[in-house]
Order: sequence, then structure tokens, then C-alpha cells
Amino acid sequence: MPQLFTVITPQEAWLRLEPHLRPIERVEIIATDEALGRVLAEDAIAPSDLPSFPRSVMDGYAVRAEDTYGASESLPAYLKVIGEVTMGKPAEITLSPGEAALIHTGGMLARKANAVVMLENTREVDTSTIEVVRPVAKGENVLQIGEDLAQGKALLPRGSLLRPQDIGGLLALGITKIAVFQRVRVALISTGDELVPPEDEPKPGQIRGINAYTLASLTLRAGGIPIKLGIIPDDYQALKEAAEKAMREADIVVISAGSSVSTRDITAQVINSLGKPGILVHGISLRPGKPTILASVDQKPFFGLPGNPASAMITFDLFVTPSIYKLSGCSQPPKRYLKAKLSRNIPSAPGREDYVPVKIEERNGELWAEPIFGKSNLISTFIKADGIAQVPLDKTGLAAGEIALVRIF
Amino acid sequence: MPQLFTVITPQEAWLRLEPHLRPIERVEIIATDEALGRVLAEDAIAPSDLPSFPRSVMDGYAVRAEDTYGASESLPAYLKVIGEVTMGKPAEITLSPGEAALIHTGGMLARKANAVVMLENTREVDTSTIEVVRPVAKGENVLQIGEDLAQGKALLPRGSLLRPQDIGGLLALGITKIAVFQRVRVALISTGDELVPPEDEPKPGQIRGINAYTLASLTLRAGGIPIKLGIIPDDYQALKEAAEKAMREADIVVISAGSSVSTRDITAQVINSLGKPGILVHGISLRPGKPTILASVDQKPFFGLPGNPASAMITFDLFVTPSIYKLSGCSQPPKRYLKAKLSRNIPSAPGREDYVPVKIEERNGELWAEPIFGKSNLISTFIKADGIAQVPLDKTGLAAGEIALVRIF
Repeated sequence: MPQLFTVITPQEAWLRLEPHLRPIERVEIIATDEALGRVLAEDAIAPSDLPSFPRSVMDGYAVRAEDTYGASESLPAYLKVIGEVTMGKPAEITLSPGEAALIHTGGMLARKANAVVMLENTREVDTSTIEVVRPVAKGENVLQIGEDLAQGKALLPRGSLLRPQDIGGLLALGITKIAVFQRVRVALISTGDELVPPEDEPKPGQIRGINAYTLASLTLRAGGIPIKLGIIPDDYQALKEAAEKAMREADIVVISAGSSVSTRDITAQVINSLGKPGILVHGISLRPGKPTILASVDQKPFFGLPGNPASAMITFDLFVTPSIYKLSGCSQPPKRYLKAKLSRNIPSAPGREDYVPVKIEERNGELWAEPIFGKSNLISTFIKADGIAQVPLDKTGLAAGEIALVRIF
Repeated sequence: MPQLFTVITPQEAWLRLEPHLRPIERVEIIATDEALGRVLAEDAIAPSDLPSFPRSVMDGYAVRAEDTYGASESLPAYLKVIGEVTMGKPAEITLSPGEAALIHTGGMLARKANAVVMLENTREVDTSTIEVVRPVAKGENVLQIGEDLAQGKALLPRGSLLRPQDIGGLLALGITKIAVFQRVRVALISTGDELVPPEDEPKPGQIRGINAYTLASLTLRAGGIPIKLGIIPDDYQALKEAAEKAMREADIVVISAGSSVSTRDITAQVINSLGKPGILVHGISLRPGKPTILASVDQKPFFGLPGNPASAMITFDLFVTPSIYKLSGCSQPPKRYLKAKLSRNIPSAPGREDYVPVKIEERNGELWAEPIFGKSNLISTFIKADGIAQVPLDKTGLAAGEIALVRIF
């Protein structure tokens, strides 16, 4: 007989788990140029001004703005060109009233200059004289000292997930080494007497166990380190030993259990035997994924996911992925979802959150989600899909044309 | 004086480049479980049926469907339970008329059984008898041989970018090694007399060169291998030698040049000196990014990007990233863009495609893009942003409330 467990909503389930998720706080120092996708463990503060000198943002002439006031096409200002600013060198030219210096984008402003006239607003009269046909204001076309980043200002807060531009900003300030949180270690255990490793030829009644591999890929995507602990038989003692090893080696433990009732019972018993508080949630109003177990054992999140490959991936995405980000100290996980119009009705039962594989298509600039209906979430169905569309808990389905939230896989 | 170049639209620019982009076609064999994000170099064909035996998709009883016809709550069918199917073993039980066998999800159907009755639709009468209160049709709750994937059918076509579910599908079929295209090698050269490496302290007039690092991160994101060739002075011979080395070592060459006119000229001259056809596009109606050069030299795509860090990233994203995917044989690059409502007006000039950094916020379930206005695309502005919103070529701007396409960075 099925074990009676109390089913709660996915949202409630997450809220029960979340208070138990504490960042691992283990820090390591790495080279900034190898930090893509890592999480900053301390605020990054600008150690100096950027730029450290006034820079031209245009090709043109460094001038004293006041020498250009009132200039126009019909009444240009005439300036004497006394030289050219060399790129990458300190400005050696000092302007007197009525003088200008040729300057390139990125060049250091000549001394006593306070603005740059764009090349397009000048005309060469002779080799040492230009006409300026539009006035410039003080500071125009100039990046002032510290205008990009002022010394002492925070460039990035602790908890930032580092993107290409962040790497660039840190290096622009000379921050070539940074403190990041260590990557979160996720142990993956599969159970099921019917499972054999992918390299083996299954005998009648057996199938290849693939969840450790799909979940390892999802772990990598979330910035974690997967630790595959293999296939364990449906046996209390064997599973308990594997789970203890996982608790020693990892920050998060995931068991994808055979979905039969007896296997689920063993998983639940093992989790509760390992430590406190144990199981927090057993049963979620979710399809697929109803028998999911969320637990916390000695401060480590512990998950019992269904054995069906598609169900395991969906429940991992809903609960384990955000847990990896939480433990890794990441304050703003990347969003892997979008909104799209449904091309067909999706039926559902109220009081249950349904996830249906969909293919995303762009038609006339609009995103459409085409449901892929298939028996029992086959792996082949999942491969045809770009993501899964959510049918909210309080709906009896979604109608064609309605906007659905789609999680991208 | 500025060199006169013919400015064309971003779309036209891409169409001129695209015919020159040929997949590199270099193949390597790797372990499937290390293939996340790689591109399949051959069609993946199912070598056997999945599943290879009829499997139950429910906990319940394997039955002969005909024994349940007409069964109801008030008039149940009585079946004799003659045993239990052991998980992972060939079915050793053979049903005679009026018989059933206990079965778990994933279990092999008993011989002569053709359907499974869900546990919920049965009642135990005594240890060897059940009542079935709802009929099942032939095949109900059974996954037939080859129903997930039939032998000889294509699981994934050549050119597929492998996702977690694809890795799972391949392993489910026992495909533990696969042929993938080699990762595309992208050489990154920075030029600019004002640039010093990030680890150096810039002197007055100098800044740290960061483009090789931001572009290396974007290369990694697109699945390529970045090859950083350092900072080269603004000198024809030095740049030519660096470019020749890049041509030998990489599949794609990117020079991010100082944005001054003279440096741009050197880049253009070097590209045209290296081989045919040389420069295809010089000047794009794009802001930032107008002076971008698209070229093809001896069958290798070659890019001259602006030196400003934000401009370099945007033009890389628009032209180099899709080129990396093309060369890597990937038929469906992942989409890193979304649509969001603008919270403020963005002014623009018609005849030019503008990109403006925006922050993405969700308000009442809707995505909003908040423009971040800043001088000349500072790196700090880019760090505050989640992406860049496109103002199309034919518009004089976008109004608050309009939907903008946002490329995520």
C-alpha cells in the first residue's frame, strides 16, 4: 500500500527548505581571468581611480572650452595647433589661450585643456591652424578622473556571479586575484535494482541508470562539482553506507531513487537515520515529481528525487539548482526561463503544479511554446523539448494563446 | 582626417560575412559524460530499442486487460495474485486467465500480461486475491519495447549542442563515446600604445588593456578556446607578425584595436595584406561599434573590433559569437536574449542600430528593461547592466512601454 505522506505545494516546500540552506563560506583565492562563473566572496572595491587621468572619448582637438564659446559655421573660432598628444604618454603639451592639440580617443588631455572638440566639428585651415565650428562646454568629450570608477567605490558586491564584463572591470582596476567561494560539492547517488551502468549491456528487466549523468550536467551548469557515487542496490544498509560517504564528501546529497514505493521508503528511512532535522517535505503537489523528498541532515541539504529521468531533472531544477546557488553564496542566480504563448491547450488538475515539455518557436517576433505530449515523460520527449512549461497550481490547465512560464533545459 | 568607409546595416554586414563561415569539421571522440556543451559531429542513432522489454510505468498489478473489462466499484473483477515481479530481473511469471502479478514502476511485464492496473484502482481481498474496480485497455500503463526510442531511429542529429538531457539519452542507449567537433580556437589580439597588462601599474596616459579577458570569457561561453596573444603596439609590422601567428594558431582571429583612426587604418592594412578576400565590411551603422571590420583571410574569419571595452563586447556578441557557433558546426546556438518593456524612452538616430545597457526587473510578472544611461559605455555602466537593448535601425528611438529585444550579457 502506498505510504501516506502529506503533500504540500512547491512554493511551501521551498519555504520549508530555504531556512536550512546556509552558504558554505569556504573561500579560495584565484586568478581573476579564471573566475568566469564563480561567486565573489568579498566586495570588490576600486583601489584607484578609473581612469587615473582625464581621457578624451573622441578623436579631435584638446581645447580650452572658453576659446570655443560662440563659434559657429559662419563665425568659427580659430585655434593654433601646437602639437599632438601621444597615445600612452603623459601629456607634455600645455595649452595657452587660443591653442589646441590634436588628440585621439583614449588620449590624455593636454595640460590646461578642459574639453575636446570632435574632429567633425573642425576644419584644417593650414598645418598649424584649425577652425572650430561648434562650441564645446567644459568637460565635453572628456572622461574625468574616477568618472568610470572612483577610488574606494564598490565595483561588485560579495555574492556576485562573475560575468565577462565583471572580469573586465576587476582587471581594469588591476585586481588580478580575487577571493571566491569554493564550488559546492554535490553527491549523486542512484538506487534501483533494475539499474546497470551505461557501459553495461542491460539484461531483460534491467535498464541503464542515467540520472547521475543528467544531474551531474545540471550541477555543472549551476557552478557545482558533481560527485557521482554510482548505483546502489535497493537495500537499507547499502544505501545508508553510500549516504554516509556522500555526507562526508559533499555539501549537498541527492539520491535519485527508484520510484517504487518500497524504494522511496528505504530512502526516507535512510535520510531520517542520518541526522537532524531529517525530512522536511515528503510529497509535493507537482507533476512530475510528487514523491520528492526535501531534507536537511546535520546542516546539509539532502534530496530524494524520483527515479524517472525526466522527473529527476525537473525536480532537480526546481529544488536542487537553487540550493546549489544558495550554498555557493550567489545572491542573483541567472534566470533560465522565459515567457511564451502556448500553441495548444494544456489540461491539468487544480491543486497541482504541472510541468509539460515544450518546444520554443519564434513566429513573427513572438515566442510560442508548442507542447510535446508523450507518455510518462520519456527521455526522448525531453530531448525534443527546449524546456518545460509551468501550469500553475490554481489552474485547471492553460489555454492556447495564454502566456506560460517556460524553464529552459 | 577620418578614412571614408562605406557604412552598411548590421544585417547586411552579417550577410556578407556568413558565406565565408565554414564549419571546421575537425572531429574528436570523447566520453559522452564529458560532452556537455559540445557539438555532435554525427547523427546519434539508437543501436537498440529503449526500453528493451515492456515496462510498467506505474506501481500496480500486471494483468491481462481482457480480465478487467467491465470492472467497476460495484462490480469488481476478482484476480488471483500469483506472485511479484522482481525489479531488474526477467519476468519469470506467466499469467493464465484470471491471474495478476504485483509489479513496481519500471518492472518488466509478466509473460502473457498486456496491461497494468494502478494500485489505486485495486483492493486487496486476501493475500492472494485482489479486486479490480476499473478496467484497463491493452497496453495501458505499459511502455512498449522501443516506445521511447526504436532501434535505428535518430536520437539527435549532427550539429546538436549537447544538453543534460541529451547526455542522458545517449547514455541510456549505451552510447558512452561520441564524435564531437573540436572546439573552435579564437585568437585575441589587443593593440593600443596606451595599453598595459592588467598586472602592471599604468603610468599617466596609460590604461590596463582588458579586452582580451572579456572577449576570452565570451569565447568560453560560446564553447570556443580563447588564445590570448597579448598587447601589440600600434605598429604595422608588429601587428602583422602577431596576426600571422594568430592565423597559424587559431580558426578565428580578433583584433581589438585602439579606436583612433590611425590604429584602425593599421588594422585594415594588416588584414588586407594577409590574404584573400580580406576585408568584407568596414563600417557598420551601429552604436557602439561603427568602425567594426569583418573580414575573411584564407578561409578564416578575421575581425577588427573597436577598442572601447563595451563596444568590443557588443560587436563580439553580434558578429564573433555567431561565427564561433557556425564554425563549431552547431546548428542551433542557444539564445541569450529576451523581450522586456522599456521603463523609459531611449532616443536614437534613424538609420543606425543602437544598443543601450539595461537592467532587467520583474514587476508583477512582467519583464521590464531599465536603461542605464552613461557616458561612452563605461565598463562600470556595463557591470550595472544585465544586457543591452536594441533600438532597431528604422526607429528614431523606443518609447517607454515599448517592447525591446535585450541581449543578455
